[in-house]
Amino acid sequence: MSADVVAKLVGLAADEQIDCIVAMSPENATYVGGFQVPSQVLGNRGRLVMALVTASGRSRQIVVDMEESLARSETSLDDVVSYNEFTDDPVHTLADSLEALVGQDATVGLELDFLSYDHHRRLRDRLPELRIRNIKDFLANARIIKSPDEVAALRAMGRAAHEMHYEALAATAEGDTELEIASRIVVGLFERGADDVKQLVVGSGDRSWHANPAPTARRLEQGDMIRLDIFASKGGYLSDCARTAVVGEPNGEQREIWHKFVELRQRTLDSIKPGASTRTIYFEYAAGLEAFGYQPINFLGHGLGLTLHEEPYIDRYSDSTLEAGMVLAIEPYLMLPDRQWGFQLEDELLVTETGCERLTDVADDAELIVVEPR
Amino acid sequence: MSADVVAKLVGLAADEQIDCIVAMSPENATYVGGFQVPSQVLGNRGRLVMALVTASGRSRQIVVDMEESLARSETSLDDVVSYNEFTDDPVHTLADSLEALVGQDATVGLELDFLSYDHHRRLRDRLPELRIRNIKDFLANARIIKSPDEVAALRAMGRAAHEMHYEALAATAEGDTELEIASRIVVGLFERGADDVKQLVVGSGDRSWHANPAPTARRLEQGDMIRLDIFASKGGYLSDCARTAVVGEPNGEQREIWHKFVELRQRTLDSIKPGASTRTIYFEYAAGLEAFGYQPINFLGHGLGLTLHEEPYIDRYSDSTLEAGMVLAIEPYLMLPDRQWGFQLEDELLVTETGCERLTDVADDAELIVVEPR
Repeated sequence: MSADVVAKLVGLAADEQIDCIVAMSPENATYVGGFQVPSQVLGNRGRLVMALVTASGRSRQIVVDMEESLARSETSLDDVVSYNEFTDDPVHTLADSLEALVGQDATVGLELDFLSYDHHRRLRDRLPELRIRNIKDFLANARIIKSPDEVAALRAMGRAAHEMHYEALAATAEGDTELEIASRIVVGLFERGADDVKQLVVGSGDRSWHANPAPTARRLEQGDMIRLDIFASKGGYLSDCARTAVVGEPNGEQREIWHKFVELRQRTLDSIKPGASTRTIYFEYAAGLEAFGYQPINFLGHGLGLTLHEEPYIDRYSDSTLEAGMVLAIEPYLMLPDRQWGFQLEDELLVTETGCERLTDVADDAELIVVEPR
Repeated sequence: MSADVVAKLVGLAADEQIDCIVAMSPENATYVGGFQVPSQVLGNRGRLVMALVTASGRSRQIVVDMEESLARSETSLDDVVSYNEFTDDPVHTLADSLEALVGQDATVGLELDFLSYDHHRRLRDRLPELRIRNIKDFLANARIIKSPDEVAALRAMGRAAHEMHYEALAATAEGDTELEIASRIVVGLFERGADDVKQLVVGSGDRSWHANPAPTARRLEQGDMIRLDIFASKGGYLSDCARTAVVGEPNGEQREIWHKFVELRQRTLDSIKPGASTRTIYFEYAAGLEAFGYQPINFLGHGLGLTLHEEPYIDRYSDSTLEAGMVLAIEPYLMLPDRQWGFQLEDELLVTETGCERLTDVADDAELIVVEPR
């Protein structure tokens, strides 16, 4: 995917008078480098990965020597430079590349919300005349409109996640554990092309209303609510799709909440199109839920891509204008600790020229999923 | 696991004259806080998690408001404070806690290899009299000796990973894809108690010799080598266990390399005990492989815990003295691009009072694993 990205960044860098962009957070190094370097997936911070693009159109990836061969075979950047993780300082490798590509007094864009205090100090010591600009927002904005390849990866993972909610819960019964549900989901995700399952939320009973509980050996009991959220990935592109189930027949109040969620989702989908205000969308949703007697959480949705939560946010505090090519996750969500109920209905969608298209499948989700009692 | 950890850190902080330790990297926030906060697993950097321990024995966790209820139910720290991710600056929440717990001119330990340049600047602006010390090494050293609970988690994941190499490959035949192998492995890992599969390496054929290739739709062919490495986790504690297979009968040279690996592993296991030098262990291994005609990579092994690579390293450049309670992964490894062969034999072990104990199971791995040709 990287060739288009590099061309886009070269243009943006020239506009912003930045001589060299240095992407180094996992999401931005993947975006610019065109593939996920495994050490970053594994969170090995010592193995810093950097993707450089200059305003004159040159590009370079910097990786640990162990991953140089993989990088050469996968990246679409011009060249790959590596460092020895035990004897070299990757910041000095970066400094050498900056000197060679743009000179020691160039204007360089760095992610100052990611670059550590220590790395920044070492780069400053080595290249004191460098002019450093924070490109956190610059890169977040570059990533906001997805390319067709990015949409394809997001669509594949969204559909896989959506299908696995129904398949895994259809194979589940009272007495099964949360971990058994997780394992059913994971195998189906890999069958559908995921190369990584970033995390699964499986919260049942008194865990269903918490945010993001991991699966445990807890066994399902009659009357439990179950909240599932699936974060699968393919080349770094994530799914974010959530559903809710009940063990045995849901009661009237549970059904009503779900029906309200389905209605609010539809209203939200109807209002999503280029030019729409995220703030307006959030407050229309919030008003609908409040009129029904419940308090909404602070956000209804967010952009989705190489990170789970990214621009644009659909929330109480900010306002963005939607554009074609954005991919969003919208998630009506209620946490009701008094009743030990957690409800979530989360779908992914692509903003099109005229409205939006659901990336998660359009199945019959008008009712809560029912898990069979024993 | 956190109560013991807090007691240990209180003692260390007093020794080092640090008034308050602030753990904020995923591994250290998990270690100190006693559980994995989901947003950190998901790599959401905006949702900073911090675990504070003062030299006087007070402790506090700082999390995003969405995860406050989960943190309250899971942490063993004294209290939990939260921030609104859209309207609060978590650095200011930290500053408020530092002022309240230890005062605005206290000596505070921060992870300066993790704390971003921007966060550091905002903390400095808010509390200019704070004395800041880098506790990167302090925390890495605190984590080096594992508690019995930590060993139990590592043992469970090591055994699960080890078993799944054999089970998954026994169910695999020529024509299957790398992704199918991955899916067999993952389901078995969840059945064995993993709550997360951090990443799987499945590299076959011309991908087998690369470092860390993710599974793809590539189909196995007669004569392919397959290299597998399994990074499962339970509460954040990782497995790191690798095996190698061949589709069809291995040739003589492949067998010889494997036999050499098994012999070198045994020699390494025999030399691992309290007081042993990691440098000596590395060079004995390297000499053995060189005498056999191959060049070793720069390391033979590393500590394993909440991160995949941690102290102590067994490598060409450093020297550490082994102590009882360390958990190590040792990995004879050859990348032979000319032949498109990748070999790896990686096991986990616990350093005991008298020697070491394998945490990965002791199965019959004297021969390369054979995948059935069609």
